[in-house]
Amino acid sequence: MSMLINGQPGESISALDRGLAYGDGVYRTLEWCNGQPRLWRWQYARLAEDAARLCLPVPAEALLLEEMRQLTPGLERAVIKIVLTRGVGQRGYAMPEPCQPTRMISANPWDGYPATLAEHGVTVRWCQLRLASQPLLAGIKHLNRLENVLARAEWHDPAIREGLLCDQDGRVIEATMSNVYVLKDGVLLTPPLHQCGVRGAVRDWLFDCAPALGLALEETELHAGDVLAADALLLSNSLMGIWPVAQLDARVWRDFTVAQRLRQHWLAETA
Amino acid sequence: MSMLINGQPGESISALDRGLAYGDGVYRTLEWCNGQPRLWRWQYARLAEDAARLCLPVPAEALLLEEMRQLTPGLERAVIKIVLTRGVGQRGYAMPEPCQPTRMISANPWDGYPATLAEHGVTVRWCQLRLASQPLLAGIKHLNRLENVLARAEWHDPAIREGLLCDQDGRVIEATMSNVYVLKDGVLLTPPLHQCGVRGAVRDWLFDCAPALGLALEETELHAGDVLAADALLLSNSLMGIWPVAQLDARVWRDFTVAQRLRQHWLAETA
Repeated sequence: MSMLINGQPGESISALDRGLAYGDGVYRTLEWCNGQPRLWRWQYARLAEDAARLCLPVPAEALLLEEMRQLTPGLERAVIKIVLTRGVGQRGYAMPEPCQPTRMISANPWDGYPATLAEHGVTVRWCQLRLASQPLLAGIKHLNRLENVLARAEWHDPAIREGLLCDQDGRVIEATMSNVYVLKDGVLLTPPLHQCGVRGAVRDWLFDCAPALGLALEETELHAGDVLAADALLLSNSLMGIWPVAQLDARVWRDFTVAQRLRQHWLAETA
Repeated sequence: MSMLINGQPGESISALDRGLAYGDGVYRTLEWCNGQPRLWRWQYARLAEDAARLCLPVPAEALLLEEMRQLTPGLERAVIKIVLTRGVGQRGYAMPEPCQPTRMISANPWDGYPATLAEHGVTVRWCQLRLASQPLLAGIKHLNRLENVLARAEWHDPAIREGLLCDQDGRVIEATMSNVYVLKDGVLLTPPLHQCGVRGAVRDWLFDCAPALGLALEETELHAGDVLAADALLLSNSLMGIWPVAQLDARVWRDFTVAQRLRQHWLAETA
């Protein structure tokens, strides 16, 4: 693992950083592939919007690209993580003015998922935890992730790759580390993320490219029954790309056509 | 500022610590006074319960006391912060097994609040932000504090010392950094914290000592109207102790008798 912290090689941060004290920051995890970050246009747009919603300054795109390049010499494929925090602050919740943000970029040799998961589909489960509704934080990939930690702790079986999460009213929102899509009568449906959930870069990309693929993709409220009645169930995140779900408890799916078509398009995307 | 990290002097932590990555940890802030931490019995009980709810191992009480003593030579009065995280982990939300937790204890020379605030009362406001309901996290002083950061960013007037917070249904829950109490007809009322809010050590202490003081203290749902109709409004946290509220928008209170009686008892507490 190699890391740049505010542009300098390092691997530690101040124990007074507000990223630690309050989870006061945002992050992205993404794939570095053949000399560039995959879906970078969407990753950077999401990072910038998430940072802006928390009143965090966002680094210039060129600076982030340059630092990613510094960290990946000789790496054909890597996992990149970008973390932005509000930096060191005095005790207390008030935002420091001006703030000196902390920028962390790390690169790990690729340890992502085997392609067989995308080919054969994955097994998922329902989580008991119900996501809290907070419109001021919904959609943001911020550093307050205890709900995800607790949800992921609900199972230990390594054969189960993901857990589906509902909100307090039983609406399906996402999975612990991915966005969720239901295929029904040829239309791909995904939950709105105005109250909770994380808006992933692959989800944004899908909305942008669906029309050109002749695919209808719509935001709509989904419940457990809609998931069980789906013709196919799909997951997306920046390291898995797009996975079809093969099994959810007793429910089994076998037609992965749409997931595999989207995945091929995702693999070919160079923007 | 002096700090011990896992017992060693230091002031930085691994950038891979889950406290930073996910806010995966808990903390306490407390007052060191005349060679001991104030309300320690309640502080430690809360730290232990909060840690247990997140499946974090809790350090032995004697170890924490010893480290606080190491950090406070010559300091008659200090602000102590104890942070426990799930330590360094691999990428992903799954809890590392076994976990190697990170324990940070820091001491700052006292920079708490002037006593005049407790004597003359403080000015507070309502926050717009509505707290999200998450029973699995409610009451815990964990490191996911973005709601508090956003609520505290709603005002800049230094004359306003606190902001009152309601949940999504308009129930009053707490203030950004303190618990809230309404005095009505001789009974002190404070909101239940089963859905959101932080259970402060002073609040626990008040419940334990109220009977001996002949004071009725009850958990009950409170709305904005109950606050405005209160005979007195009180706030508590471990550094302010107990503050009476003198003003909330146009509403003014002048009788601080109960707050000052409780404060005297708090100042005299040596447990």
